[in-house]
Amino acid sequence: MKKHNFSAGPCILPQEVLKKAAEAVVNFNGIDLSLIEISHRSKEFVDVMENARSLVKELLNLPEGYSVLFLQGGASLEFLMAAYNLMKINGKAGYMDTGAWSSKAIKEAKQFGEVEVFASSKDKTFNYIPKNYTVPTDVDYVHITSNNTIYGTQFKEFPKTDSLLVCDMSSDIFSRQLDFSKFDLIYAGAQKNMGPAGTTLVVVKDEILGKTGRTIPAMLDYQVHISKDSMFNTPPVFPVYVSMLTLQWLKDLGGIPAIEKINEEKAALLYAEIDRNPLFNGFAAKEDRSLMNVTFTLANDDHKEIFDKLWNAAGVSGIKGHRSVGGYRASIYNAMPKESIQVLVDVMQQLEKEI
Amino acid sequence: MKKHNFSAGPCILPQEVLKKAAEAVVNFNGIDLSLIEISHRSKEFVDVMENARSLVKELLNLPEGYSVLFLQGGASLEFLMAAYNLMKINGKAGYMDTGAWSSKAIKEAKQFGEVEVFASSKDKTFNYIPKNYTVPTDVDYVHITSNNTIYGTQFKEFPKTDSLLVCDMSSDIFSRQLDFSKFDLIYAGAQKNMGPAGTTLVVVKDEILGKTGRTIPAMLDYQVHISKDSMFNTPPVFPVYVSMLTLQWLKDLGGIPAIEKINEEKAALLYAEIDRNPLFNGFAAKEDRSLMNVTFTLANDDHKEIFDKLWNAAGVSGIKGHRSVGGYRASIYNAMPKESIQVLVDVMQQLEKEI
Repeated sequence: MKKHNFSAGPCILPQEVLKKAAEAVVNFNGIDLSLIEISHRSKEFVDVMENARSLVKELLNLPEGYSVLFLQGGASLEFLMAAYNLMKINGKAGYMDTGAWSSKAIKEAKQFGEVEVFASSKDKTFNYIPKNYTVPTDVDYVHITSNNTIYGTQFKEFPKTDSLLVCDMSSDIFSRQLDFSKFDLIYAGAQKNMGPAGTTLVVVKDEILGKTGRTIPAMLDYQVHISKDSMFNTPPVFPVYVSMLTLQWLKDLGGIPAIEKINEEKAALLYAEIDRNPLFNGFAAKEDRSLMNVTFTLANDDHKEIFDKLWNAAGVSGIKGHRSVGGYRASIYNAMPKESIQVLVDVMQQLEKEI
Repeated sequence: MKKHNFSAGPCILPQEVLKKAAEAVVNFNGIDLSLIEISHRSKEFVDVMENARSLVKELLNLPEGYSVLFLQGGASLEFLMAAYNLMKINGKAGYMDTGAWSSKAIKEAKQFGEVEVFASSKDKTFNYIPKNYTVPTDVDYVHITSNNTIYGTQFKEFPKTDSLLVCDMSSDIFSRQLDFSKFDLIYAGAQKNMGPAGTTLVVVKDEILGKTGRTIPAMLDYQVHISKDSMFNTPPVFPVYVSMLTLQWLKDLGGIPAIEKINEEKAALLYAEIDRNPLFNGFAAKEDRSLMNVTFTLANDDHKEIFDKLWNAAGVSGIKGHRSVGGYRASIYNAMPKESIQVLVDVMQQLEKEI
């Protein structure tokens, strides 16, 4: 049965990527060995790593002076590493609190110094992105979460600051055109638009590192990983390879400008139905709606049973909302085809007819 | 062409495991979705994680009171985590230095307190395991590396201590029968006997944790990971799944007692040829020889070209020695069939005939 996979992450990946990845697990590049049983220092895998890094630089249009890393530990480890590498001794950082992941980042940073949360949308279950805040100027860096998967909100404008700008882009990197050179540190768990769980992309401006006065444990030190081309320790070979395939797929498609257009069309299709159909309410503030995660609730909870039956029967999966928000969440990452969104829209219209 | 993969890690995995892993990348358990695109909180993946943990407990014959974790970051991150979780404030730890990996573990531990290196084999390029040492008694824990991949040495007897015993078993876990309950903390990167690179097995005695007085960052705190069943953050889904398959393969084979017998036969075959053939010298001290990594050199370097040509022609791969030792290293982990070792032995005998 054809499935329409709206999972929030790990999530849908391009079918051709999955096919190539499966082939490589049995016989990689025709070398009669599996990708996952060869040395990470073999020419074959070093090429994969270099190609993945180079695709990131090209797709994000990064200027000189940035390093690209593929690490382990997800964004959760980056909460710690970002603070460890950037917050000076007796330093201070400014954070925006736009959801559960921002809150976790804040918690970890507090172990390294003072954290000023200069804007928060906690008062309304994080259903909007704060505006009209004052960015503190006495900070080592400012930290934001560009897309908030659980609530379906996304930054359209970024804070202006003369300090370093750090961004957790786990759930929307490679989905829309941005001037990525405005950021000093970007990190992203792979398992949304880039690949399977198990690797983390880090994009960092070289000149910002080594300035805290701290002794950083080797595995948490960006400079150590940069000096070893992401091979300080054995890298997560399979997740890096699948990420490379997905980045190549995106490049072949026309890169971020092409996918942005598709993503806008996909999101417009679903939000239009939410706004039109009286049986549904959007969760996020309209002006802050995410192009990646579309959150909505039933106007009447009595319709839950029949709606759940309808989308299940249509092969839709992974749209249960996060427990802190309830309702539904349709994650429509880069690899999600428009046809699958149309299936969901059809189901929403079918509900209207049936009740 | 049939390859004989002697890579040191990532390394050979059972063919049936590779086949099942490839299938799961396209369609996992017949659910019409890929393993790597479903939620890690789905019943399907939670079952994988629970099964993997339960197989570890069963195969290692662990008593009650131990937790099993699948984390990220490899042994390199464990060098840090072991010290963070076990070394008290103003504490001290005892380390044995038996090679490059021990040395790295020592370096990281020094950031947390005093480290006494109470035995080392550095004087002879780590070609033996120290004996007749005195284990310090005023330490929070004692740390060893059970198998030293680069040099081909392996502990046969472990230090006796009333302190906690911590062991990096990355390259020989699941290969031989041990009383694993003698260890308080065992860690192992997956990429030898367990699975692909990208996950780390941690086996820890619960009662030893939470006693240092330190505040530990969430991602580095074993108790945090235990409380969330290795799902504090998104786990490395594919590496965990392949590890589960490999552990199941080992169980079906008869577990550690069965593989130990096979491993002993395999190693005996190769060491016998090294000792018999005047063209080769073993690197490691005989009494400390590893059953996993067999290191040897040519008695006469002039034979290098012809020997390299012979083994390449026979489909042998991955036997180049580590640069710090030179010569050759044949890694013969659990999944390596005896037939492949016979091929290498045949090549060594062919060299004798040809020169």
